[in-house]
This record gives sequence, structure tokens and C-alpha cells, in this order.
Amino acid sequence: MSRPVMGPVRVGLLGMGTVGGGTVRVLRRNAGEIARRVGREIVIAQAAVRNPARLQGLDLGCLVTSDPFAVVRNPEIDVVVEVMGGIEPARSLILEAIAAGKHVVTANKALLAEHGNVIFAAAQEQGVVVAFEAAVAGGIPIIKAIREGLAGNRIQWLAGIINGTSNYILTQMRAEAKDFPSALAEAQRLGYAEADPGLDIDGGDAAHKLTLLASIAFGIPVDFAHCHVEGIRNLDRVDVVYAEDLGYRIKLLGIAKRRADGVELRVHPTLIPERHLLASVEGPFNAVLVDGDAVGQTLYYGRGAGAEPTASAIVADLVDVARTLTADPSNRVPHLAFQPDCMSALPLLPMAAVESAYYLRIHAHNRPGVLAQVATVLAEHDISIEALVQKEAGAAADVPIVLLLHRCREGDLDAALARIQALPVVTRPVLRLRVEGLGESA
Amino acid sequence: MSRPVMGPVRVGLLGMGTVGGGTVRVLRRNAGEIARRVGREIVIAQAAVRNPARLQGLDLGCLVTSDPFAVVRNPEIDVVVEVMGGIEPARSLILEAIAAGKHVVTANKALLAEHGNVIFAAAQEQGVVVAFEAAVAGGIPIIKAIREGLAGNRIQWLAGIINGTSNYILTQMRAEAKDFPSALAEAQRLGYAEADPGLDIDGGDAAHKLTLLASIAFGIPVDFAHCHVEGIRNLDRVDVVYAEDLGYRIKLLGIAKRRADGVELRVHPTLIPERHLLASVEGPFNAVLVDGDAVGQTLYYGRGAGAEPTASAIVADLVDVARTLTADPSNRVPHLAFQPDCMSALPLLPMAAVESAYYLRIHAHNRPGVLAQVATVLAEHDISIEALVQKEAGAAADVPIVLLLHRCREGDLDAALARIQALPVVTRPVLRLRVEGLGESA
Repeated sequence: MSRPVMGPVRVGLLGMGTVGGGTVRVLRRNAGEIARRVGREIVIAQAAVRNPARLQGLDLGCLVTSDPFAVVRNPEIDVVVEVMGGIEPARSLILEAIAAGKHVVTANKALLAEHGNVIFAAAQEQGVVVAFEAAVAGGIPIIKAIREGLAGNRIQWLAGIINGTSNYILTQMRAEAKDFPSALAEAQRLGYAEADPGLDIDGGDAAHKLTLLASIAFGIPVDFAHCHVEGIRNLDRVDVVYAEDLGYRIKLLGIAKRRADGVELRVHPTLIPERHLLASVEGPFNAVLVDGDAVGQTLYYGRGAGAEPTASAIVADLVDVARTLTADPSNRVPHLAFQPDCMSALPLLPMAAVESAYYLRIHAHNRPGVLAQVATVLAEHDISIEALVQKEAGAAADVPIVLLLHRCREGDLDAALARIQALPVVTRPVLRLRVEGLGESA
Repeated sequence: MSRPVMGPVRVGLLGMGTVGGGTVRVLRRNAGEIARRVGREIVIAQAAVRNPARLQGLDLGCLVTSDPFAVVRNPEIDVVVEVMGGIEPARSLILEAIAAGKHVVTANKALLAEHGNVIFAAAQEQGVVVAFEAAVAGGIPIIKAIREGLAGNRIQWLAGIINGTSNYILTQMRAEAKDFPSALAEAQRLGYAEADPGLDIDGGDAAHKLTLLASIAFGIPVDFAHCHVEGIRNLDRVDVVYAEDLGYRIKLLGIAKRRADGVELRVHPTLIPERHLLASVEGPFNAVLVDGDAVGQTLYYGRGAGAEPTASAIVADLVDVARTLTADPSNRVPHLAFQPDCMSALPLLPMAAVESAYYLRIHAHNRPGVLAQVATVLAEHDISIEALVQKEAGAAADVPIVLLLHRCREGDLDAALARIQALPVVTRPVLRLRVEGLGESA
């Protein structure tokens, strides 16, 4: 049994590559918010790196060692984060950490898909947690969604785009009309594919993740050896074109399906209807569609890889473990995400302070000079017009003028609109809608 | 402080309308799986309904009363599920349940958005949980995602389609070219809109939900009174058309954005780029896009209302509470979703047992009768062709024949493909891809 932790939660980090570095960065940058959410700090107390000399100058603020076994044997460590990858020594390290009563957070999909049963059994016996949100679909909290968010459901099936490299290549083949080799080369150039891309394009990586998802969804042991695996290496550009002609897009899907007689577990390129939401998941993004008997279909979408998206999942697991170690049930399943003492730092802003782009529909008398009057008022408030739609009005007495405005302060637009509304040529209330790019340029 | 529960978790249910009925149904139907996930049973021990006589013949298997206060005062009840709706008596009942040390699960967005601060403070003081996953976006585990799954992030902003009625109406206005009144009438006919649709189409319901999401995301008190609220009542069909001309779709969005000087909180119809994933969320579906500093953008999609989707969220909250009440940390944050003793009920099936639709690309000599040979083999294995693409080959010696096949057993197709591959006219390995409708007809 693990001992309760009362001070900071002390993390031992195995590996300081891309994901390890991202984890250090995120834990530091958001230390205050995380502590307020959990009710205690989460600190990296010791890190094992292959070559500690390389870290000189980089102030990790913790013990650094080249011996990862020193970390799992350190009695001061509560949780071990394994982000070194590979089967050995990761497997031995995790088993030794478990045996020492430490919780484990890992991003190691290959290890868990191939050796998870032994690891989970050891953890169960020791009463410790092995958390692996980061092993599947980067920062998308899909493990949590299936394990907890959909816990009331009998999961019928799930289907996921869970290898960003393959999805990027398939997107390039469709949208940029590239053939497979040049799309792969482009993915390698951008760092989306490894120099040895086999694990990605031949489906093995997706199969590792699918094995873990199926285990969570159906309560079955991990059984990577029996997962059917086909990659995208044999696809030709013409298949992408034919599929489009037929109303489909090709995606590398991992599919797990519950049937009366067993479970289907398969990774293969798949034609899916082009209007389906999954068909719109492009480039290096991941998405998982889950069908539960009560909830119906739900979908989870986001970046499937990268230092900080993966670190996001690792920190979420650390927060879960920290809450597990906390006695107060209101911290374990908090009603709010924060401790109440910080609950008033940010005031709500008035609408006049909001900045947005805008759509205006203005009805005015059908006569020359109307647009000039409107444009002049806007210009006097430093608001610029991005686009104009003016439909042929013919002999109508009243014409709609539709404008798209660049971003401005809502308060400035309010003032301009009051003047536009008062123009004698304007015949009806002006309709104002807001335009948001939602992360794209609007 | 709540007392630990060792036997079944005993639920008191307040309200037996659509959501209450769905909750009873889901808890019963999936009782076995839920118990295996949690390590104990979750049972409804008592239910309060307005008119118990109406429930005669319906075997609830528990105490039934017309007095909801009898439920919150029943010392045998561990958790109260409030699905009666409205402000009073729901507010008094929840506060009394909390005062009695009971955990509370509620779907009551209006109550929490308007009176949540008092309720959360009382719960914090008593050390009990108030869980409300069902209050926002039906069965989509969005509260859990923000509160736990993204706990390592500083949330920058979120934007959601969180009122299915409005989204259904907007979809009808665009896709079916309806005007607002007839789209609303259609929504009412299908049960997506109430007889009094004001709360939905004027934005109040979305604002209730947005208030809760912002509170979770930013750690601020609920402050519904200061949320900016505009609905879709003033939209004209022409705005939908103009927006499309400009490359946008109109969605009723709830937007919460963190700025250095405070938080924007606003519900209004919004033009968003038509290629954005949120623009593809149609009909009564909900979706929430969340931008975190580590994870980037993630999106959560599913049914935002309905008896069983909402029940899915309520049961998930009950499972969380039940895990909170459990001493064994491996059940609190389980590495697998199931107890290990059931971990081998479902065998993995061989690929030959899978049923799918298929895409075939067959290269054959350019001569008459080739298609007939292929079709004959398929017919002899009872496999039927749904579509055929045969491009003009001109004088090429080798032509691709692309076929879409109806669903069949993979084993049958394997046998047919072995014969097709062996036909002397076939010049290259046949490419076989699978076709999946993913819940739509493939």
C-alpha cells in the first residue's frame, strides 16, 4: 500500500528527451495553478538522464543522476514518471518502482501494449496506480473519458485516428495530390515522421494505442499480438482519388468493436464517408470516436503528439495521483477545479471591452452614397472593412448592405453603430453578429 | 465529513422525469459493468416523484415517496441525485443534503449558474462533492476533461456549441433553406425545442452552461448575471446565406476567454470559418473547443441532451463519487477500467470473422470479359458489388478496376480474393481496403 503524502508530491523523472523536457516546462510554468487545483505542489525531486553533463547550465532545481535505478530506489520519491521509451530498462524500472510502492505515470505505449498485463497485475497487488494518459493520443484525455467519463456505458465500439504521422501523409496525398513517397518525405522534413518511419506508417504505433484503448473500453487484457495491423505503405495516390470519387476519404483507423462472441481489434486504412466528422480530422491531429450504449457517439479531438501536448497528459495523470494521495474528498473529485481561496482573481469584463471581428447587415434606402456614409462613420471610429456584399437590389426601395469588419473593440463599434442607426437613410435596426476565427485567422 | 461506504453506494433520486427515468434505466442495464468498474454496486435506494401513484406497475425496486425532503433526510442515503430541475425546491433540497453530509449529483444548470457559489461553499465546508457533469453538454465528459484531463494547462479560452435546439434550428436554416419560424416549428415538432423555447433560442440555457464551464476553466465564481447573452431569434435566413457567401457558418457559441485584465463571458450567434471543425457540428449535437497552453486545442463532441446521454453523465459522476468513497487507491484512479477478475471474458476475434464493406483495386489486362470473371467469383462467394469505377484506359495494357463491395465476412472475401488473384488476366496484387460507415450507413 502506498503511504499518504502530506507535503508536495515528489516526482522522479526517468528521461529528459522531448516529452521529459516538456513535462518539466509545463510543471514549472503552471506550478501555481496546478497547486491551487490539487491543494498541494507537484515537484520534480530527481531526474535520470542519459548524460547529466549535457544538462549543465539548465537549472533543473533537482537531483540529477545518470542511473535511473537510483530514482526508483529513492525513498523520497512518491511517483515515477517514465518517459525514456523502449522496452528495457523501462520495464524493469517500472516494476521496481511498483514493488517499492510508488505510483507510475508513463507515456510508453509499446511497453504497456506488449507487457501491460504483468505491470498492471503488479500494480494491483501493490495498490499503486499506473497511469498512461500520455500513451494514447497525446494530450487528448481519451483514457480518462473512456475509463471515467463514460463509466456508465457499455462501450460498443471505438474508432480512432491515433497516428498523426500517417494522418499527415494521407492528408498530403489528398489535399496536395502528393504520392506516398513524397508525402512521407515531407512528413520527415517537418519532423512528423522519424528517419525510420516503420512504426508509424506500418500501423504498429496505432496498434499499440488501440490495444490500450480496447483494454480500457472492454475490460480485457492487453493483447497486442492478436491485433490485426495494416499500414498505409501500399496505398497509391489513385486510391485516394477513387475514394473521393465514391464519396469517401481514406484514414488509418484503429477499430475496436465488441461483439457477442468477442472483440475485433484492427488497424488498417479505411474508407469513411467524407461528410463524417472523422473525415475532417486532417494533418497531424488525432481523434477518437467512441460509441456507448447510453451516451451514443462522442468524439475527442486534438494534437496526438508533441512535447507539451504529451506533457499535458502526464501532468493530468500526476494531478490524479496527487488527488488520490489526498485525504480530503473534495480535492479528490473537486466540484470546482480550483481551491476556493483563489476564486476571485479574474473579474468578468463588460462586453464593450471585448475585441472581435463583426458582420453587419444594414438596411438602407436604395440611393447613391449610402455606402459612403456608412464607411465614413466606421472610418471615424477607426474601424476598417474587410469585405462587402451588396446584392443587386433592382428597383427595391430598401437594400441590404452586408459588411465584414476587421477586429475592433466592441465599445468602439457600439459608438459607430449608434451613429449609423441614426442616419436618415437607414431603414431598419442594424443586425450585428460577431466573427471568430477560433484559433484560425478570422 | 462524509463517512466511508463499504457496501453498495446508496443513491437517493429526486425526480423521475426524462433524465431520472434514463438514469434508472442505465444504472440497471449496466449494473454489472458498473460494479466491476467501481468495485461495488451503485443502487437507487429511494426515489422522490411528484405522483408516486403514476409509477405503479413500474418496479423501481426501491422506496418511493412524494416528499423529496424525506430522501435528503434519509440517513441510509449516501448520494443525492437531483434531476427535478427548477430553482426551488431543488436549491433547498441540495443544501439540506449537503448539510447532512451527503454527496450531490445534479443536472441543474440554471440552479448552479445562478446559486452555485452558495452551494459550492456549503459543500466545501462539509467535505462533500457536488458533481454536475450532466449540467453541461449532455453525456460529453467536458467538465471532467477541463477539471482533470487538462489540469496541467492554463486554459486560454473555450468556445462551445452548447445548446442543441439552437444548433438544430441554425442547421435547418442553412441546409434546408428554412426561415427561422419554420425551423423553430420543426424543432418543436421533433421534441428538440420546448413549447416555450425562450431559454434555448434566446441564449439563456447556453449562458447557464458557459457560466459553469468558465468557472471550472478559470477558477472563478459563477456569475451568470454578468454573462453577455444574445440568442438567434433575430437571425434572418439571408444572414445564413450571406455568411456562406463569405466562407462562414453561423453558430450560437458560448465563448469564455481569459485576458490579462479579466474574463470575457459571452453567448451570441457567431460567424466561424466554414472549414473549422466546429462548423461541421450539425443538428442537435454539441461540441466544445478548449485551448490550453500546453495541449493546444482539443475538441469534445456528442449529444448535448436526451434521457440516456444525460444519464451517462450522471452515472459517471456517481462512479466518481463511489470511487472517492473507496479506500483502495487502485479503484480511485484505476489503471484499467475494470476489476481484474473479469479481465478475460471476451476473446479477440480473428480477422476472418470481421464483417466489413470493402474497396478493391484490381489491375487486369485490358480486354473484354475481365469484369465478368471478377464478378462471377464474387457472386460465387455471395459477395455483392455496390459500386464500380472503371476509368477510360485507352490503349493501356493494364487497367485498374475499382469496386465497392457490400458488407461481407472477411473470411469469405479472403477466399474470393485468392481466386481473383489467381485469374490469368490479373496482373498485380489486388489492393483491398475496408470501408466503415462509423454509425452512418457505409
